[in-house]
Amino acid sequence: MKTIKTGVIGTGFIGPAHVEALRRIPNIEVAALADIDDETARTKAQMLGIDACYGDYRELLAREDIDVVHVCTPNHLHYTMSKEALEAGKHVVCEKPLATVSGEAEELTALAEQKGLINAVHFNVRYYPLMSHIRQMVEKGDMGKIYSIHGSYLQDWLFYDTDYNWRLEPELSGDSRVVADIGSHWMDLIEYISGQKITEVCADFATFHPIRKKPLNPVETYSGKMLKPEDYADISIGTEDYATVMLHFENGAHGVFTGSQVSAGRKNRIYFEMDGSRKAVSWESELPNQIWIGNRDKGNEVLLRDPSLVYPDSRDQISFPGGHNEGFPDTSKQMFRQIYTAIREGKQAKKPLYPSFRDGLRELVLCEKILESSKKRAWVSI
Amino acid sequence: MKTIKTGVIGTGFIGPAHVEALRRIPNIEVAALADIDDETARTKAQMLGIDACYGDYRELLAREDIDVVHVCTPNHLHYTMSKEALEAGKHVVCEKPLATVSGEAEELTALAEQKGLINAVHFNVRYYPLMSHIRQMVEKGDMGKIYSIHGSYLQDWLFYDTDYNWRLEPELSGDSRVVADIGSHWMDLIEYISGQKITEVCADFATFHPIRKKPLNPVETYSGKMLKPEDYADISIGTEDYATVMLHFENGAHGVFTGSQVSAGRKNRIYFEMDGSRKAVSWESELPNQIWIGNRDKGNEVLLRDPSLVYPDSRDQISFPGGHNEGFPDTSKQMFRQIYTAIREGKQAKKPLYPSFRDGLRELVLCEKILESSKKRAWVSI
Amino acid sequence: MKTIKTGVIGTGFIGPAHVEALRRIPNIEVAALADIDDETARTKAQMLGIDACYGDYRELLAREDIDVVHVCTPNHLHYTMSKEALEAGKHVVCEKPLATVSGEAEELTALAEQKGLINAVHFNVRYYPLMSHIRQMVEKGDMGKIYSIHGSYLQDWLFYDTDYNWRLEPELSGDSRVVADIGSHWMDLIEYISGQKITEVCADFATFHPIRKKPLNPVETYSGKMLKPEDYADISIGTEDYATVMLHFENGAHGVFTGSQVSAGRKNRIYFEMDGSRKAVSWESELPNQIWIGNRDKGNEVLLRDPSLVYPDSRDQISFPGGHNEGFPDTSKQMFRQIYTAIREGKQAKKPLYPSFRDGLRELVLCEKILESSKKRAWVSI
Amino acid sequence: MKTIKTGVIGTGFIGPAHVEALRRIPNIEVAALADIDDETARTKAQMLGIDACYGDYRELLAREDIDVVHVCTPNHLHYTMSKEALEAGKHVVCEKPLATVSGEAEELTALAEQKGLINAVHFNVRYYPLMSHIRQMVEKGDMGKIYSIHGSYLQDWLFYDTDYNWRLEPELSGDSRVVADIGSHWMDLIEYISGQKITEVCADFATFHPIRKKPLNPVETYSGKMLKPEDYADISIGTEDYATVMLHFENGAHGVFTGSQVSAGRKNRIYFEMDGSRKAVSWESELPNQIWIGNRDKGNEVLLRDPSLVYPDSRDQISFPGGHNEGFPDTSKQMFRQIYTAIREGKQAKKPLYPSFRDGLRELVLCEKILESSKKRAWVSI
Repeated sequence: MKTIKTGVIGTGFIGPAHVEALRRIPNIEVAALADIDDETARTKAQMLGIDACYGDYRELLAREDIDVVHVCTPNHLHYTMSKEALEAGKHVVCEKPLATVSGEAEELTALAEQKGLINAVHFNVRYYPLMSHIRQMVEKGDMGKIYSIHGSYLQDWLFYDTDYNWRLEPELSGDSRVVADIGSHWMDLIEYISGQKITEVCADFATFHPIRKKPLNPVETYSGKMLKPEDYADISIGTEDYATVMLHFENGAHGVFTGSQVSAGRKNRIYFEMDGSRKAVSWESELPNQIWIGNRDKGNEVLLRDPSLVYPDSRDQISFPGGHNEGFPDTSKQMFRQIYTAIREGKQAKKPLYPSFRDGLRELVLCEKILESSKKRAWVSI
Repeated sequence: MKTIKTGVIGTGFIGPAHVEALRRIPNIEVAALADIDDETARTKAQMLGIDACYGDYRELLAREDIDVVHVCTPNHLHYTMSKEALEAGKHVVCEKPLATVSGEAEELTALAEQKGLINAVHFNVRYYPLMSHIRQMVEKGDMGKIYSIHGSYLQDWLFYDTDYNWRLEPELSGDSRVVADIGSHWMDLIEYISGQKITEVCADFATFHPIRKKPLNPVETYSGKMLKPEDYADISIGTEDYATVMLHFENGAHGVFTGSQVSAGRKNRIYFEMDGSRKAVSWESELPNQIWIGNRDKGNEVLLRDPSLVYPDSRDQISFPGGHNEGFPDTSKQMFRQIYTAIREGKQAKKPLYPSFRDGLRELVLCEKILESSKKRAWVSI
Repeated sequence: MKTIKTGVIGTGFIGPAHVEALRRIPNIEVAALADIDDETARTKAQMLGIDACYGDYRELLAREDIDVVHVCTPNHLHYTMSKEALEAGKHVVCEKPLATVSGEAEELTALAEQKGLINAVHFNVRYYPLMSHIRQMVEKGDMGKIYSIHGSYLQDWLFYDTDYNWRLEPELSGDSRVVADIGSHWMDLIEYISGQKITEVCADFATFHPIRKKPLNPVETYSGKMLKPEDYADISIGTEDYATVMLHFENGAHGVFTGSQVSAGRKNRIYFEMDGSRKAVSWESELPNQIWIGNRDKGNEVLLRDPSLVYPDSRDQISFPGGHNEGFPDTSKQMFRQIYTAIREGKQAKKPLYPSFRDGLRELVLCEKILESSKKRAWVSI
Repeated sequence: MKTIKTGVIGTGFIGPAHVEALRRIPNIEVAALADIDDETARTKAQMLGIDACYGDYRELLAREDIDVVHVCTPNHLHYTMSKEALEAGKHVVCEKPLATVSGEAEELTALAEQKGLINAVHFNVRYYPLMSHIRQMVEKGDMGKIYSIHGSYLQDWLFYDTDYNWRLEPELSGDSRVVADIGSHWMDLIEYISGQKITEVCADFATFHPIRKKPLNPVETYSGKMLKPEDYADISIGTEDYATVMLHFENGAHGVFTGSQVSAGRKNRIYFEMDGSRKAVSWESELPNQIWIGNRDKGNEVLLRDPSLVYPDSRDQISFPGGHNEGFPDTSKQMFRQIYTAIREGKQAKKPLYPSFRDGLRELVLCEKILESSKKRAWVSI
């Protein structure tokens, strides 16, 4: 089997996670890395054990032997880099969001499809194997008609006004924060498992820290010591700390989710309950290896992630036996396995199981409509 | 200590629960019972071991030796019976809702206050002892500023279109079902623990069974055998099976709850999470003897209902030591203990801890505004 | 229906719990109370709203109109009081343990049976309604052959060496503490649900606080202030803080339980898992309204206490619908309901569902054998 | 940084898991693979994307450029292969158990130490990051004196008598099954976190399927179709399906664990509770990203695996932020990271944090003593 060569652009939190996940899959070589300048690129390449490195991503794109590019940079760079990668004839796996505005995402989607290149956005939550099983429960009619879907995505890493990160700056991250960063994962997951598109939204946003304190020097410098008042600058925050969005779906189902980055004790917790006319099902990502299935006329069920207990089509996403828990790092591995299978086949399905640029575009459209609804204090159609 | 004599009107599901709870408290005697006709009253009185019974509640009200009346009949009778009981000089404990429209509730509240009689509505959920503890956590500042409160109240007893009950008929139950029946418990609880009033609502309703099948004969007759199609009549349903309501609170907090009576596997599950600037706290009623407390900088906490672990003011609502779980029946006992203490003292506090007619009125106003919001598809101020 | 009159002897922690539970059942009157002296008896009678009270229990026993006596005094008094009550022709409900040595229990059992009086010991844990359901799962063959049963009963109320109580003194409580006080509940429950008798035991005991500090004055006096070193006396402790007991059952099943009163954070937690050849089942008393059912070939189940979801014979032990949790106080109510039904029928079944004196005797025999095993460090046959 | 070259022998369930874990760590190359014959080796090498493969592991050992060997074959081969690898001057990571008898393990330990080679046994459970945190809680005195440790390790993959695997055959697997296969993980974990050695054991074994049905042809052939009675042979089973072992520790602590491979619904569940004089702590491997901490005088805690919430020395074993769950595959990665750091340093610590051959020997000694105890029905000293 031919080894596919891949280049990764960006080595913050998520770039190395891509590298690690890719290496778990046989016959893929992470051949090159690009970062913001030569020195950063060299340091990270050594740390990660990657042969080639570039301070300018265009040099990476120029390499003929590289077939696939992973774009893992801050949000505002996704559009340009993905576009140039496609133009260089590379398959592209882009971090979410695909762009900062839907128009750019539309352009990327069209370009990728026109060039016949594999294109994917890293909505990895779909790849907790039980999510695939739920999708099949829905498809096979186990759930009956879907009535309602409600849930939340809660974090606490921006709990204090002294918590700071580039995601707080709209010019780097976009005009929405909670909905774009984490709400998009929730919506992508829900549309994926339910097979239903959202048709209307009604949103309520809140910013509990309208002023945050930005460290004046890079945060790494300060690690391990106390910051003093004069080390900070007060910055106005325009993006939301909290959002609740009510939803209508194409089949008549109703829903709602709450996203928050100021929920103490919730490190990164995705939750949903989907109520159907036959069963209900719920999942929380802090216990990712089990789902709850609700029944009216018999006991409820707790199904563990076990290859022998899920539908055959979901087995392929499980590498380890029941009770041998898998987690967050395994989702990217399973996602990349499907994407690279498509790369070997040279052709993207019309509706691939993995999230394509079309899904990345979808989330940008949803976010824009949700922002509009929040401003209008009214329902908005998609 | 003088024995207080009490009369109970109505002996469906909740009347006997009142009787049982009252008997657990020393020096209260359930002296009389009234029901829809003489025979029913006699049968139930024998079954419950109550000396006196009446087919006409007015006879019960006429008894001089009875100090307190509990109104446990279907919703549309609450207003008249409570009014007449007050006029007869009785203290009144009314089942929720206090009336079917807010105007009547207002009248009852005024009448009770003018007469100086103790008045209470059976919002018993407040009396899970840990709810009192959370209220004190908020009061003492443990939670900091409340940012958001989200949750749900889910049931499955009306899951099928063949599930039928008088609560489905607006003329007996009122124009709202999910919000009035169970949403009101959730809102009463949240305003009680948070100390914050709801100021705006934005609601989304759904009726998943617009037609339900009503048994043509009383359901008891059929118990244990299969109903045939000709045993049913199709009835149009106007009240909601599902509701999501977004909330704004007076202090700037945001919130949302989802109520549903068609959520398979959820028998009667109340859930909330309240996120504050210091801590978060959450509770689910299917595990009523513990609360979860979320922290950003240390482990989360699970606090068990234990007299030695709660604030002193909450201890009084706990009868049994930690690990000796209490449940639904204990809530009414604790609530009645507080109400009868007020009865002995002869005077209701301006803001009693137990839910008064004023709180019953509050819930009717909230329900009416929520109904209005649902029809207008817009935010409505309270 | 005739009202049955009952007298209760002893009003520490558990006596009032009996009174409260009895009052929840129609047509039973707690007519009299006895305690250690006139003043205590009078005070408690007023507090509990009981008409008659006696400083000498023999006066209570002398009352012709009292049919049933509940013995709720410290352990060393159970034998004498139960014996005199039986001799006075009363039905007897005795707190556990039935006596402090098996010989006395044997005598009481013979006396009660000879006199044809109803006799019961308050092993209330059986009366969590799902325990009855598990018993029926076993009887109907749902579980298959029972392979193994393992679990624990953990508390923390004797965690510190300054925690003191009469149960630490063998002359009042008996020669075993953890096994006799809480292990006996576990074993009674397991033999009840599994239908299997224990045939062999192998025990390992530990006393982590060989010296405890006994307050020199009654503890109530000190409440709310710090005890100083001179307020305590050092007392040697001979009974166990911890015990693990391996078990063999008559059908070849194996088992083990750990009991401890020094397990921080475990307020009163009973746990077991029973593994059969078809299913496994487990329960923990801190979440008493649900059981876990384990399956090899499909999802596991979580069955909620809901009258519509349990076997018909267990429905009678459930007073409230699913999701309306019941707890510790409800167990005594359900137990007394069954006992008083037998009292009305005037006759005890050969093997009643409620724990009889024969079961009380059984636990004393088991405890003695376990003590013997612990001393011999070897297996001992029952 | 120099790339270390590694060879893996054996490619059943666990060999590929080693390969995948190794590849996640930068600067390690899985350079060669050996299996039972040329064809198997070639097929697996292609599937796993490994350049070199050998039908005879001795050829792999002969390669000068390979520094480390992972022995992932069935148990009875571990001794010989590890010995030859050491003799060839390779560092060795051996699957558990290190050998089938303690004498051989002793020989291997001596040989590795004499040659100054890194040696490790794959007791990976230690590497759930919270286990390291618990170890530090103990070391820093947070727990106080350890009183007792109880728990279980339960599986259901050998639930039916038709479940068959080479681990059921003593000549391939050894004389103990449950204790050697899974009990050894539990004991290694407990001695690691508590810092206390087991000094005495008292065991009770059971074999619930004394006869099992062995498929007459390799099981793969049959996959997906029903086996008929004539496809099986009845085989006598001498090893245990179930074991309970009571334990004494050097500091006076008491303990017990139950192991079982016939517990329906338990896929692979490790559980323990450790009770100390200050706190208790418990963990279950099906929810590996959290531990429960029990307190007497305040709420209990649930600590999530989050780098910011654990002791600094445990942070290094966490790759992803709180809420981004890690699982079974991550344990091997973290373990190998520590082992390969030692390999780079060229020297094994006297008491390395990772499990060395000395720990592998320890488990064999414990298993042999437990087998002896089970046969004698008595306590045995280690």
